[in-house]
Amino acid sequence: MPVDVPRQVDHKARRDQIAEALLDIVADHGLEAISVRAVAAQAGVSAGRIQHYFANKDELLAYAIEYQDWLVQQRWNEQAWPEGEPTPREALRWVLLETIPRDDRRRREWLVGVAYLIRMLANPKLRALYVDGLPRLYQLLADLVRTAQEAGDIAPDRDPDMEAELLFGLADSQGPPVVLGLRTPEQATAAIDYYLDHLFQ
Amino acid sequence: MPVDVPRQVDHKARRDQIAEALLDIVADHGLEAISVRAVAAQAGVSAGRIQHYFANKDELLAYAIEYQDWLVQQRWNEQAWPEGEPTPREALRWVLLETIPRDDRRRREWLVGVAYLIRMLANPKLRALYVDGLPRLYQLLADLVRTAQEAGDIAPDRDPDMEAELLFGLADSQGPPVVLGLRTPEQATAAIDYYLDHLFQ
Repeated sequence: MPVDVPRQVDHKARRDQIAEALLDIVADHGLEAISVRAVAAQAGVSAGRIQHYFANKDELLAYAIEYQDWLVQQRWNEQAWPEGEPTPREALRWVLLETIPRDDRRRREWLVGVAYLIRMLANPKLRALYVDGLPRLYQLLADLVRTAQEAGDIAPDRDPDMEAELLFGLADSQGPPVVLGLRTPEQATAAIDYYLDHLFQ
Repeated sequence: MPVDVPRQVDHKARRDQIAEALLDIVADHGLEAISVRAVAAQAGVSAGRIQHYFANKDELLAYAIEYQDWLVQQRWNEQAWPEGEPTPREALRWVLLETIPRDDRRRREWLVGVAYLIRMLANPKLRALYVDGLPRLYQLLADLVRTAQEAGDIAPDRDPDMEAELLFGLADSQGPPVVLGLRTPEQATAAIDYYLDHLFQ
């Protein structure tokens, strides 16, 4: 039934519009500001419209964080490199800079991640998003270090898993000072470049 | 009027009891679970008692995070070293392990810090707690690295401010995996010891 296809797309677009509104509120005011009424007002739709798409607040919260994950994934998939494949160093730098809240979009992502954390502990569905994602990120960083080691660009005595932790830690710990305006995104980037300069020989 | 002294102490004890209840709720359910009624139930007092001590929810939230900071400060002040002054390495390790949510007390502190972060952005009084504390922590770590360098225990080509960032980042980034049960406190401690082994020569 080809008529179903546009209707499906339309449903997704409406749900995404509601998720956008929710993510904006969460980043500015935290999860405690979320209600059907507040999200409806921010999205410019009726509360009934939201209740049509989401049975309850938990469903709405779960959809919004999955939508955010999808947005991030889209950005990763669409990243184009001017000269074919990136070097391990370029790829590492790109991944680390993605985690820094250096513009409005990434700032919202970072704050939403922080806001959801406590709720993830008690909610298995939300928790799975984090529990699946974090080890994969560590693995990606360790693999890039290993590839650079095999090419002779990183000294063989470095431990790839340990370097992955350090690199993630360095990037992750820039979040609070950048969000609070204690440090600029440029200073956070310089710290990452400083470490990469020492890691790559 | 000596009669005032116990009365003052009593007021602080009652406020602290209410703050304890609030911090327990925040660590388990986030700021969105906070209401006068919920805190009263957790503390085992009447809602009227809470309203007697705190004019509104913002005052209660501000008192509770200041009370938590005071608890942390007490622990730092009371830390005793078996053989007089600690070495820079011992002091560094102690500070870094304090930031890891490795037991119930530190887990609550860590989760409360996460829960308050978004509210700090909009609330100047709460924001000041973070904005004052973070640079002092970086400074403390950098000073310890510098002292160890002067004693010849860390190579002179290491940059103390950069090392402070790396050390804080390594400790700070252990929080989410430890809280989510992806990594044990022992593994987080091992990562810190691994890095200290390489930093100290």
